[in-house]
Amino acid sequence: MQETKYALRVELNEPYEKAIEDVTGALKEQGFGVLTTIDIKEALKQKLDKDFRRYVILGACNPVLAHQALEVDLEVGVLLPCNVIVYETSENSSVVAAMAPLPTIGMVGAEKLNPIAKEADQRLRKALGQLESKMLES
Amino acid sequence: MQETKYALRVELNEPYEKAIEDVTGALKEQGFGVLTTIDIKEALKQKLDKDFRRYVILGACNPVLAHQALEVDLEVGVLLPCNVIVYETSENSSVVAAMAPLPTIGMVGAEKLNPIAKEADQRLRKALGQLESKMLES
Repeated sequence: MQETKYALRVELNEPYEKAIEDVTGALKEQGFGVLTTIDIKEALKQKLDKDFRRYVILGACNPVLAHQALEVDLEVGVLLPCNVIVYETSENSSVVAAMAPLPTIGMVGAEKLNPIAKEADQRLRKALGQLESKMLES
Repeated sequence: MQETKYALRVELNEPYEKAIEDVTGALKEQGFGVLTTIDIKEALKQKLDKDFRRYVILGACNPVLAHQALEVDLEVGVLLPCNVIVYETSENSSVVAAMAPLPTIGMVGAEKLNPIAKEADQRLRKALGQLESKMLES
């Protein structure tokens, strides 16, 4: 797993559709439901007539953690849900990346949010790690 | 308009549904379409059987700016779309807040993203400012 300043990411040796299916399943095991889906390729074609690679933004939400966070800071919703992107890098490879909760939720600067962000971070790492270990097994 | 470390917000003397309708219109004038809607009250009731105030997260996307940003950094999608929340504070008042693009997109640390984040910031300020001046007129 790689970490950037704002994301956790894994490169997968599997096609785009399969990556979407697998990350959705791995997120579900960590209590994150996918509440929204934005098909970027389709949106850019439709709105701007631009060709773009296959790319989706999934809005993943763990309702228990979201509720805890909103009870601490009602306006943390502008940083929810946790976005998870999947994009195609070749016919048989894809990238999955998730918004890193520690730096993003950390922006709020509320100490009580820290354990919630940590829990979300650990769960996202588990979900992405599971996708990676599946690659190593196969 | 108030600014927090991560959001731009306005308090409106209008009911929740009207605020959603008005912010959707004001965003549209600034080139942001609402691509996703998460009804937090409904989600928390359904998933956790918890009662929560009326609260919605709108995923607002300006396709021109999103395309420019993705061309600079393919993974900036984990910070898109721009979330705009609306929640009820009383029968006749609501709060509208938008994710502030400068600190969030600024996390990426890519200089070429700065003018795009600035443009998004200005457009969101215009949209929220329009809602505020409507209040002053009425």
